[in-house]
Amino acid sequence: MDNSFGTIFRITSFGESHGKVIGVILDGVPAGLDFDLEFIQNELDKRRPSQSWVTSERFEEDRVKVLSGIFEDRTTGAPLCLIIENKDIDSSLYEKYKKILRPSHVDYSALKKYAGFSDYRGSGRFSGRITAGFVMTGAIAKQILKKYKIEIFAYTKSIGNVVNTTKYSYNNISNLIELREKSLVRTIDRQSSKSMEELINKIKQDKDSIGGTVKCVVVNFPAGIGGPIFNGLESIISKAVFAIPGVKGIEFGAGFKATEMRGSEHNDPWVLDKDKIRTTKNDSGGIIGGISTGMPVEFTIAIKPTASISVPQNTVDIETMQNVRIAFKGRYDPCIIPRVIPVVEAMVANVLADCLLIEGFVPRVFK
Amino acid sequence: MDNSFGTIFRITSFGESHGKVIGVILDGVPAGLDFDLEFIQNELDKRRPSQSWVTSERFEEDRVKVLSGIFEDRTTGAPLCLIIENKDIDSSLYEKYKKILRPSHVDYSALKKYAGFSDYRGSGRFSGRITAGFVMTGAIAKQILKKYKIEIFAYTKSIGNVVNTTKYSYNNISNLIELREKSLVRTIDRQSSKSMEELINKIKQDKDSIGGTVKCVVVNFPAGIGGPIFNGLESIISKAVFAIPGVKGIEFGAGFKATEMRGSEHNDPWVLDKDKIRTTKNDSGGIIGGISTGMPVEFTIAIKPTASISVPQNTVDIETMQNVRIAFKGRYDPCIIPRVIPVVEAMVANVLADCLLIEGFVPRVFK
Amino acid sequence: MDNSFGTIFRITSFGESHGKVIGVILDGVPAGLDFDLEFIQNELDKRRPSQSWVTSERFEEDRVKVLSGIFEDRTTGAPLCLIIENKDIDSSLYEKYKKILRPSHVDYSALKKYAGFSDYRGSGRFSGRITAGFVMTGAIAKQILKKYKIEIFAYTKSIGNVVNTTKYSYNNISNLIELREKSLVRTIDRQSSKSMEELINKIKQDKDSIGGTVKCVVVNFPAGIGGPIFNGLESIISKAVFAIPGVKGIEFGAGFKATEMRGSEHNDPWVLDKDKIRTTKNDSGGIIGGISTGMPVEFTIAIKPTASISVPQNTVDIETMQNVRIAFKGRYDPCIIPRVIPVVEAMVANVLADCLLIEGFVPRVFK
Amino acid sequence: MDNSFGTIFRITSFGESHGKVIGVILDGVPAGLDFDLEFIQNELDKRRPSQSWVTSERFEEDRVKVLSGIFEDRTTGAPLCLIIENKDIDSSLYEKYKKILRPSHVDYSALKKYAGFSDYRGSGRFSGRITAGFVMTGAIAKQILKKYKIEIFAYTKSIGNVVNTTKYSYNNISNLIELREKSLVRTIDRQSSKSMEELINKIKQDKDSIGGTVKCVVVNFPAGIGGPIFNGLESIISKAVFAIPGVKGIEFGAGFKATEMRGSEHNDPWVLDKDKIRTTKNDSGGIIGGISTGMPVEFTIAIKPTASISVPQNTVDIETMQNVRIAFKGRYDPCIIPRVIPVVEAMVANVLADCLLIEGFVPRVFK
Repeated sequence: MDNSFGTIFRITSFGESHGKVIGVILDGVPAGLDFDLEFIQNELDKRRPSQSWVTSERFEEDRVKVLSGIFEDRTTGAPLCLIIENKDIDSSLYEKYKKILRPSHVDYSALKKYAGFSDYRGSGRFSGRITAGFVMTGAIAKQILKKYKIEIFAYTKSIGNVVNTTKYSYNNISNLIELREKSLVRTIDRQSSKSMEELINKIKQDKDSIGGTVKCVVVNFPAGIGGPIFNGLESIISKAVFAIPGVKGIEFGAGFKATEMRGSEHNDPWVLDKDKIRTTKNDSGGIIGGISTGMPVEFTIAIKPTASISVPQNTVDIETMQNVRIAFKGRYDPCIIPRVIPVVEAMVANVLADCLLIEGFVPRVFK
Repeated sequence: MDNSFGTIFRITSFGESHGKVIGVILDGVPAGLDFDLEFIQNELDKRRPSQSWVTSERFEEDRVKVLSGIFEDRTTGAPLCLIIENKDIDSSLYEKYKKILRPSHVDYSALKKYAGFSDYRGSGRFSGRITAGFVMTGAIAKQILKKYKIEIFAYTKSIGNVVNTTKYSYNNISNLIELREKSLVRTIDRQSSKSMEELINKIKQDKDSIGGTVKCVVVNFPAGIGGPIFNGLESIISKAVFAIPGVKGIEFGAGFKATEMRGSEHNDPWVLDKDKIRTTKNDSGGIIGGISTGMPVEFTIAIKPTASISVPQNTVDIETMQNVRIAFKGRYDPCIIPRVIPVVEAMVANVLADCLLIEGFVPRVFK
Repeated sequence: MDNSFGTIFRITSFGESHGKVIGVILDGVPAGLDFDLEFIQNELDKRRPSQSWVTSERFEEDRVKVLSGIFEDRTTGAPLCLIIENKDIDSSLYEKYKKILRPSHVDYSALKKYAGFSDYRGSGRFSGRITAGFVMTGAIAKQILKKYKIEIFAYTKSIGNVVNTTKYSYNNISNLIELREKSLVRTIDRQSSKSMEELINKIKQDKDSIGGTVKCVVVNFPAGIGGPIFNGLESIISKAVFAIPGVKGIEFGAGFKATEMRGSEHNDPWVLDKDKIRTTKNDSGGIIGGISTGMPVEFTIAIKPTASISVPQNTVDIETMQNVRIAFKGRYDPCIIPRVIPVVEAMVANVLADCLLIEGFVPRVFK
Repeated sequence: MDNSFGTIFRITSFGESHGKVIGVILDGVPAGLDFDLEFIQNELDKRRPSQSWVTSERFEEDRVKVLSGIFEDRTTGAPLCLIIENKDIDSSLYEKYKKILRPSHVDYSALKKYAGFSDYRGSGRFSGRITAGFVMTGAIAKQILKKYKIEIFAYTKSIGNVVNTTKYSYNNISNLIELREKSLVRTIDRQSSKSMEELINKIKQDKDSIGGTVKCVVVNFPAGIGGPIFNGLESIISKAVFAIPGVKGIEFGAGFKATEMRGSEHNDPWVLDKDKIRTTKNDSGGIIGGISTGMPVEFTIAIKPTASISVPQNTVDIETMQNVRIAFKGRYDPCIIPRVIPVVEAMVANVLADCLLIEGFVPRVFK
């Protein structure tokens, strides 16, 4: 239960950071979908470590392997099993973290939950590496959504206090993606990118880490999907997004800014645009009453700074039961945001594909 | 599926704003729990309209009735059916909103989903009135949590740009609740309360509405509850909280502020406190890796201004397909925050009771 | 969880035999369905007690009341709450069954599960009366299925050793239903009916009870519905059918007889019938690999004799912890089969409506 | 959804008969369980083909491999991924079954469901080979149950019309298993075994197949597990058992025989046995009202003859749309019963482990 998500398009995650593999089962994908291994690999490549100097030095090729569910290059209606192997494993450093709690790491809460039996190497199940599974199924979800011209786009909105304040038009998502992929930090605007890189460089020299925000937008998502009460789009998107390690907040549309607004400011007026109905602005983030309005679905997520840092910190040695100081020595990302971007897109793709299957908008077989 | 939440402690919502009843089924409540009807009624009273001049003028007594699941004043292990009746119904105004889309109301998205068949009177299933069901089961959940000294407390953190910035100690939750209940706007600090009331009064005179934020904290929640990946506490709390109409954002611990912080600032150092392990601060909001740390679970939610306002707004008449102007004439809350407080507490109680049952921390029978 | 069934078309059962009501929530019914209260009532009337001398003497009108989900005589997409009231309650007899275990009744197993807190009056949640809820939603499911000409028909195949061995053609289900409703025991063949009535009369005089079998068939069910592994049609039909009190066995197609057959006898040969493909016989019961074949879905269920009898029986007084003898004094059905017929049809209708919604065969809105 | 089963102890099946692997994910297994790879392999060995002349000639070693979830020889609380590889694959014969429907095989119903995209080689997802996954997780479930002295035992009750009518005492399950494993057909009684072997030999010479029944019993299962309505033990056991290819019927306790009995015969009298309460017989099969009574859980399942036979049969060529005759040429089991035995035990173990976790009877961590 803990490791599955979705009703029809359902993913089940498995694997550990320093185990043999990271994998995912995808059940409920419609039969007859062209399977594009290369596209999955491309998406994975955006997530993998050691892409550039801003990311972790762990070197993993992260080649996707398909164990089931594909026949003659098409989905069959059977569950897919997709894995990547863990190769560049160095668990030597983790032995000591059984005893010394890393601040803001899961060591203590996992100890309380699993009574010491969890695989702590490389943070085990709690590693960001788990998200590779989400990206693999997300790539398949994106291919389904693309059939309906639905596109998902995320980018780095801010790192630390460096904010990309440019408002983008969402008319040409492919172009935005292209621009984003030219930026080491996955923002779009070149000046913002440069400032963010400088900040990360400084943070890295300080052996520290830094947080940031990710903006995500879904275009051409049909109106009328979602529902009131427990399966509203905000409910299921937020549930999915908080599965990504480091996420500590989410806001839709105007979000926290809406709390300072009057209704007369915040309400999105409806207007006739030729014979189509749309709103003149989108402070609702494309969702009202949990249901899509046909406007872009927009949200922003908050990601805390990486907990692993080499700055010395106060903590407790639970073996000796003493207060001690620790400086983490493993490989880590000084700023995880650039690598979270493809994961956010993937999680949202997974969730929305499921919604569209539940509503019968996407069929169970692509004939 | 849309109207149910939880795995063992599972609530199913039904009823419409202008239908006969608002109701809820509660399955999975442990047998042998003393049933305290008065406590449920007290909680409901905090949510009901017409409490004071700051809330809607719809007058409803909201007396809870029990249709099933209780025998000799105790839960039996069978599902409870709890209802309140709708009495002060005036649907005359809503006929026209079939045709004229109310800005930032669900009219358009519901039309797209239900093709015009949904009950639009008083916003039907999308009414905030639905949350009375969450409050009824939440009161039962609170009674379960209380057996383990787990307490939940929410208060108004801000209304518009009036922010209650006081930091409260959570050592005496009963006292905080008492102070909060003395405030018409359900904040604690008297000066903040006064400023907030003044703001609402002005907003009301302007026939407008205003948003705000709610801070919620859970104390004495045991460490080790929750999990990585899809059933982390952030995932399930956020899923539940977004079921409350008007919620547009949530952040745990430092939340969006964490995105501007370095790891060395944000990380919560562990420290020995006599023989107990705790952190010296709680920017993690009591949750790391989706699992509770034993520190208070803390989060803040963003609530948009009520969409119903009497200020004239631009919109579309979908019958004539013309751009028109509308000024809403129904009864509404100029600021919903004070009435959302008991709902937030209840939703969190529901969710946490379920977690504790899944983990086997709470038994299936109170012998 | 225990009291809900289905994924999209989802029923949640509540109420007790001697509580205020028996009720059911139906979530996921498509919006825009004409609501036919009279048809629901007709179905309920087939299930209610005191229909004739072969059934229990408890007198209940069992008038269906709608608490939610209907607006302007159509479904809205919101959950329906349907109830009947319990009126002819006589709980005086049940006080003693707290102490003296009724053989083959749930007294002991419920005691072990609920530690004495369950509502034992009239067997509480374990009463066959609970099935009224299944019948109400089943009537709605039948109306959905009817749009696709799918019809469900069940009849009494045997009571005790009196077996109706006639093979019926399923070309005219309405006619079969009409004939069945002329039989007090809900079989079709008149001679069988007479023999069964005689047997029940004798059993009744003996203050005993008798079991029987029910044959159920679904016609015009489309090929290609269901699936391998855990959601095969046999899996979900059997799960639903065993929810009916007294059911102790189920077999599909040739069932237990198939175990004595060779493959060359049992296999159903495919044949071209004009340009349609069908089998020349149906020992598979219309299901192969968990998926419908387009042939009628056929199964038989075994129902044990009513546990409540007035013949003296050996048992244990758990208060005094003595072996004692007991003769039940409440009202009961000497043979429950005739009243189980509408329940079986309803459960199957519920299950199949859900399957067809999951597959996208039935839309979420009837525009 | 189709490929997952269970609420806490949850299995997700993947893989195809002629794909790379057969696999299973097991989520929710308690942390801290000793992992006994050898025991899993032993259980698998009972299921694998080519054990003796009575089984299929496909040669597979079926060595279990663990991809995740185990650390330092213990479960960690993370999902396990267990696979076996497919090696002795000969798909050449199956190309033609795309066109010519095999009687009582899934060819037609799968075609209707998956529109021709399913992997038909070796029957793909519909192959009995899928059940290897159930056996692997079932072995782990058995180890959990064993901690509570709960044991599961299945044996061949009949093959064709050869019935093992001996009544066994269930006091020494280990001994019964030992005797059963000495029988090629997995019955216990030596004379029955011999007669069954003779029958299978004859069937094999005739290039035909034969069905049979399996009796399964669970001893030391605690009273009070299960529930009324939808999660009664009969409901969930039957749902699980029908996931095994070839199963066409199930009956609990006296089952279909109960339908010919009077209540006074069928009811199981309670009796004091020293200070324990039990029944003097067990026609209820250890389950009343869906809840265990503390008596052995007993049921019998009906398995149809293998659909694959080399006897010529009438069918349809869907390419030419002609009636044709076919004689199957692949490798198959003339009687699958002996290999189904370990699968039945495993499925029941999976289901019961889940029940006990849901009830909190089994903890989430074995400290």
